[in-house]
Amino acid sequence: MVSAADAVIPACAAVGIAFAVWQWLLVSRVKVSPYSAAAAAARNGCAGRAVFRPEGEVDDDDGGCGDDEEADGDGGVAAMARCAEIQSAIRVGANSFLFTQYKYLAAFTAVFAVVIFLFLGSVHRFSTESQPCQYTRGKACKPALANAVFSTIAFLLGAATSVASGFLGMRIATAANARTTVEARRGIGPAFAAAFRSGAVMGFLLASLGLLVLYVAIKVFGLYYGDDWEGLYESITGYGLGGSSMALFGRVGGGIYTKAADVGADLVGKVERNIPEDDPRNPAVIADNVGDNVGDIAGMGSDLFGSYAESTCAALFVASISSFGADHNFAAVSYPLLISSAGLIVCLITTLFATDLYRVKTVDGVAPALKLQLLISTVLMTVGVLVVTFTALPHEFTMFDFGEVKRVKNWHLFFCVTIGLWAGLAIGFTTEYFTSNAYSPVRDVADSCRTGAATNVIFGLALGYKSVIVPVFAIAVSIYVSFTLASIYGIAVAALGMLSTVATGLAIDAYGPISDNAGGIAEMAGMSHRIRQRTDALDAAGNTTAAIGKGFAIGSAALVSLALFGAFVSRAGMAVINVLSPKVFVGLVVGAMLPYWFSAMTMKSVGSAALKMVEEVRRQFAAIPGLMEGRATPDYASCVRISTDASLREMMPPGALVLLAPLVAGTFFGVQTLAGLLAGALVSGVQVAISASNSGGAWDNAKKYIEAGASDHAKALGPKGSDAHKAAVIGDTIGDPLKDTSGPSLNILIKLMAVESLVFAPFFAAHGGLIFK
Amino acid sequence: MVSAADAVIPACAAVGIAFAVWQWLLVSRVKVSPYSAAAAAARNGCAGRAVFRPEGEVDDDDGGCGDDEEADGDGGVAAMARCAEIQSAIRVGANSFLFTQYKYLAAFTAVFAVVIFLFLGSVHRFSTESQPCQYTRGKACKPALANAVFSTIAFLLGAATSVASGFLGMRIATAANARTTVEARRGIGPAFAAAFRSGAVMGFLLASLGLLVLYVAIKVFGLYYGDDWEGLYESITGYGLGGSSMALFGRVGGGIYTKAADVGADLVGKVERNIPEDDPRNPAVIADNVGDNVGDIAGMGSDLFGSYAESTCAALFVASISSFGADHNFAAVSYPLLISSAGLIVCLITTLFATDLYRVKTVDGVAPALKLQLLISTVLMTVGVLVVTFTALPHEFTMFDFGEVKRVKNWHLFFCVTIGLWAGLAIGFTTEYFTSNAYSPVRDVADSCRTGAATNVIFGLALGYKSVIVPVFAIAVSIYVSFTLASIYGIAVAALGMLSTVATGLAIDAYGPISDNAGGIAEMAGMSHRIRQRTDALDAAGNTTAAIGKGFAIGSAALVSLALFGAFVSRAGMAVINVLSPKVFVGLVVGAMLPYWFSAMTMKSVGSAALKMVEEVRRQFAAIPGLMEGRATPDYASCVRISTDASLREMMPPGALVLLAPLVAGTFFGVQTLAGLLAGALVSGVQVAISASNSGGAWDNAKKYIEAGASDHAKALGPKGSDAHKAAVIGDTIGDPLKDTSGPSLNILIKLMAVESLVFAPFFAAHGGLIFK
Repeated sequence: MVSAADAVIPACAAVGIAFAVWQWLLVSRVKVSPYSAAAAAARNGCAGRAVFRPEGEVDDDDGGCGDDEEADGDGGVAAMARCAEIQSAIRVGANSFLFTQYKYLAAFTAVFAVVIFLFLGSVHRFSTESQPCQYTRGKACKPALANAVFSTIAFLLGAATSVASGFLGMRIATAANARTTVEARRGIGPAFAAAFRSGAVMGFLLASLGLLVLYVAIKVFGLYYGDDWEGLYESITGYGLGGSSMALFGRVGGGIYTKAADVGADLVGKVERNIPEDDPRNPAVIADNVGDNVGDIAGMGSDLFGSYAESTCAALFVASISSFGADHNFAAVSYPLLISSAGLIVCLITTLFATDLYRVKTVDGVAPALKLQLLISTVLMTVGVLVVTFTALPHEFTMFDFGEVKRVKNWHLFFCVTIGLWAGLAIGFTTEYFTSNAYSPVRDVADSCRTGAATNVIFGLALGYKSVIVPVFAIAVSIYVSFTLASIYGIAVAALGMLSTVATGLAIDAYGPISDNAGGIAEMAGMSHRIRQRTDALDAAGNTTAAIGKGFAIGSAALVSLALFGAFVSRAGMAVINVLSPKVFVGLVVGAMLPYWFSAMTMKSVGSAALKMVEEVRRQFAAIPGLMEGRATPDYASCVRISTDASLREMMPPGALVLLAPLVAGTFFGVQTLAGLLAGALVSGVQVAISASNSGGAWDNAKKYIEAGASDHAKALGPKGSDAHKAAVIGDTIGDPLKDTSGPSLNILIKLMAVESLVFAPFFAAHGGLIFK
Repeated sequence: MVSAADAVIPACAAVGIAFAVWQWLLVSRVKVSPYSAAAAAARNGCAGRAVFRPEGEVDDDDGGCGDDEEADGDGGVAAMARCAEIQSAIRVGANSFLFTQYKYLAAFTAVFAVVIFLFLGSVHRFSTESQPCQYTRGKACKPALANAVFSTIAFLLGAATSVASGFLGMRIATAANARTTVEARRGIGPAFAAAFRSGAVMGFLLASLGLLVLYVAIKVFGLYYGDDWEGLYESITGYGLGGSSMALFGRVGGGIYTKAADVGADLVGKVERNIPEDDPRNPAVIADNVGDNVGDIAGMGSDLFGSYAESTCAALFVASISSFGADHNFAAVSYPLLISSAGLIVCLITTLFATDLYRVKTVDGVAPALKLQLLISTVLMTVGVLVVTFTALPHEFTMFDFGEVKRVKNWHLFFCVTIGLWAGLAIGFTTEYFTSNAYSPVRDVADSCRTGAATNVIFGLALGYKSVIVPVFAIAVSIYVSFTLASIYGIAVAALGMLSTVATGLAIDAYGPISDNAGGIAEMAGMSHRIRQRTDALDAAGNTTAAIGKGFAIGSAALVSLALFGAFVSRAGMAVINVLSPKVFVGLVVGAMLPYWFSAMTMKSVGSAALKMVEEVRRQFAAIPGLMEGRATPDYASCVRISTDASLREMMPPGALVLLAPLVAGTFFGVQTLAGLLAGALVSGVQVAISASNSGGAWDNAKKYIEAGASDHAKALGPKGSDAHKAAVIGDTIGDPLKDTSGPSLNILIKLMAVESLVFAPFFAAHGGLIFK
């Protein structure tokens, strides 16, 4: 069995990477350069027709020269040149922001690596002698100092992989955006394929990379640890900490960046100057488009990678101190990795459904195609889980259960993984119901705009609050079933189940910001209204998938945190966390407050940065003559600078809060209070995160519903510029920081605090609780 | 000692009632009737001067005829007649709403009383035989059937007292509002005195009444129970349940009523028609003023009465199963009642500081006078606690500590009560800092209105989130200290400490809506701008005191709920609530979701009712010729009807949620899950309630800050009607349901679920957990 797992895991990772490369080759055939426009037209059989026409001349003839191809003024050399130019500006902006951010992160990572080493090394005063194992009686394990060294290395590895994930995602997205615009000339189908394939490239690359690095790390660390699996898998948890701490700064920093630019651009552009979204006259427009890539793409990529890494680490750690570890059954211990491997293959097949087996042809086909992806991947994965469970696991085994031993059968684990998987689907569909403008909740919110912004906000907040009910019950049922069947290991594999289709989840999630950017490029390049309508249709579906992605992220974060919490409790040697103990209860109530403190910081940061952005945009409109008339170019760079500075400065305090809270609680108040803190932050953060994401998504789509005017009801509220539409824009702007900054960062808050506690657990158990003895 | 307690408690209650009557006699000397205007003027030495002048003639001579008296057109017979007329309209509206509401509540109370009787009676299958005591080994206690009967009676008594409290408060407030307007003619000092004295009448009446009824009930029940104090104090807990369930409907129903009217009136009046607040042309204006009395006065009165009753019941119950009960030391058991008695005397002295020893003379003196009340009452009460603790309690005793026994000294309890008391002050001052426009948080929010409503809302939400930090730490410290010193009894008396100055708290809290109404009456009666400025100044201070009152209410609710939670856990015979048990954890996460579910319902209710109100107000402006020009009278009654119907219909679902959640959880999932549910709702609800109240309070005062234009900064943002002011009005409107409907109702949610669990604990312990065995 050992050799089988050793073959399957790297093979699946390799297949995933190969698939990503293949998809990328398909996307990169679309050329974005003035010279290639002629060639592309020629290839499409439209040579010389529209390509060399002078800019601005509009072709009224709507008939394309192919079935679903249309070549009009949009295909002109000048328009293509502008596309390429804008794409390059966005890419340069995103690159430069990420590199600046990475400099800060490198400094942070270095310091924190030292902290990890010192704290963990001090557990046995940096002794190099072997110590008795904690769980396997009578055996000698590697010294605490070794764990300090390897945890630190794992931390650095996790951080590096996370940064690489975010960066790769950004590169892919900034290469894909203009290609989607170019493909939109040919029709909705090709545009969808370009955006979705690019999303898939990111999804498969990240999922495969995460799996491969983790597998290699286990093998390499194993060379030193040998038989000491306790120590091996304990130090591997550093990988999750590294991934998640980078994700925190990625999400918070990227979120502040993107929303400062977005809010600032909208407040002056849409509200005061009455110019469309993404209008090139708006000085903040490049910053806004850069933001989509550094926030929604790089931040989200790091976030889901972090969840994936953490749930795997939590599961591996618990497995190592259970009978799998005692029996040294590598296939059984590697069950989490095998589930992820199966997930890659399932997602590969699922992707083919969207790109090859079923082609999107009309605007109305976009949203169903994306929903179908969720459904197909879940159904197929259920089969995948079945296969993995019954081949990799022995029929019966025991699991560590807070000091006791729990007998578990392999089909129990099948249920644990599957319930997580299907709970994810339930959360996804609920989120869709509450944030898509195809259903009544968003339409009610749009309707409330008739009486102004105040009722819009009241209804939107109420919608967000209401949208937590089903996801929380889904999470609760998953927790109850998996906890009861297989204790904390059950929770960890349920989380993995939810994340097993992460490649598909990332693909449909990344698709959104890519389409958003594609629309921005079309607008800025001065392409026709028709092209913009197509990208808008892609984007509206993208808003909902983004909300679904956030739903998955928070749902899995809840399970992951609970798994990490359980692993922390096990590692710290506690058997009971009694709510009736004052130490625990104060942790609980203060922990429940932390998401609010954190949100207060991030919301205020976005607000303040947006105020600065508004002033700069107003200044430029006033100071640059001819800007409003389109005769002068705005100073995009100064807006990019404002977002960059705000983001880097403002990501520090919330980051410090999240990283210091567990350290302070554990060091001064002890593991009981820390356990309360984690539980409190978890149960409260889930609610805040879900409601914030969904309120924001609903406001955004209520606005889009009014703008699109697709029904009589929507027409009565619109058009753009009507009082109801203005009210909707205010709601959208309020929702921006909620859905893209504070909401999604809270996932990371709850996960990161838990994984940090797990990594530092040996230190807290040995030296913690200076005040509460 | 027994006789001493028996003398002190009723005596203090009698003194409190007498003081209330005396204050009322002082207030009622101000006459509101056209005929008395001449007499009043004559008494003031201004006979015939301004009184019989025809309406509308303005007196430019500002010199009054006394020191701080001014008599101009406002004193005219016609204006006085209008005052009396408007007052009567408000009173009739409030009366009719409350009576309609009480009919529904009577039906609910009857049904719920039957439920209580059946559930508790079924514990031992309605047997009339004595049963062995649960805590006092080897003794026989009264049958479960007796507890069912007396719990039901206590429930009815609590409900009746709560309803009486709310009703009395409303009667006082609707009699005081116009008197404050009338006194405002004479200057800010007399107006303040009238409003504050009226608040004091309500405060003392409620606090004394609550104490007296509880004391009498204990004595009367004791005639049957005799030596069986376990049964006696267990059945007394029904009193808290009765009080709190009425408070729930009072707060929710009243909150929906008042905010539907307020939001509806503002959206059309201020935003669309550009007429001032409380303009008599606005058809919703009477409903708005009625709302202040049924929501902020009657609802809040019931709420604080409920907290007071519950914390006393929780403390009494825990005391009865501790050594106080075993020793049958009545003075010691009655410690909670003695603390409340001392509180009445302390508040009496404190009130004199505001009304007699230190008189408010200028507008700037109002807020400090109110703050001083808080400080004085806290300092004096510290002494009062010291006296009561060392006279009533033995030097050392033991407390029930979840199956164990905890040794406690009397000075430990002194610390418990005092830390609750001072934590209340800390919460009060923090709330003031975040909601008063004298400090930077509200000014920052006002400043953010420069860029429109969206930034205003973002900053306001961030402010609310931030404002939870200090209160939560204050609550956490109180919990840690009192829990550690005296287990659950410590928490209960800490809650009582916070509530011991409830008479003063209610006085300054009720003062706000009375001033608000006084301003409304001045506006509607067409009194001069000067009078309106004075009432506005009173009202601005009232906004902050209302927020402080809500801070107290939620802080004490947190402690009360925890005390009730502890009592429930004790009564259900649990020693440990382990977070690591799946049953408990799912309770925790679902419990943390309940405040969101509840808020979603109440926010949506206010939103929908406000939409209806807006339509009606728009209809009237369109359909009634001459309304806008002031030549026609609007149809006030139809707006009153909309608010009434919406309130009665919409209070049912949230009420059902709160009342059914513990019953369902306990009956089907058992006491462990129920305990998790209560803890989750507590730790999450506190945050939502505080942030909602403070965001709302801050938006309201940011708007008032811009309107008042008292500084250069404020002037730059204003005046009324500027873009920044319009943005501020939107924020204010959004804050209305947050601060006056969903936020304060959450206190009751967490308390009521806990007290209900306590009352039904014997049933859940015997028959609960049908699904999770």
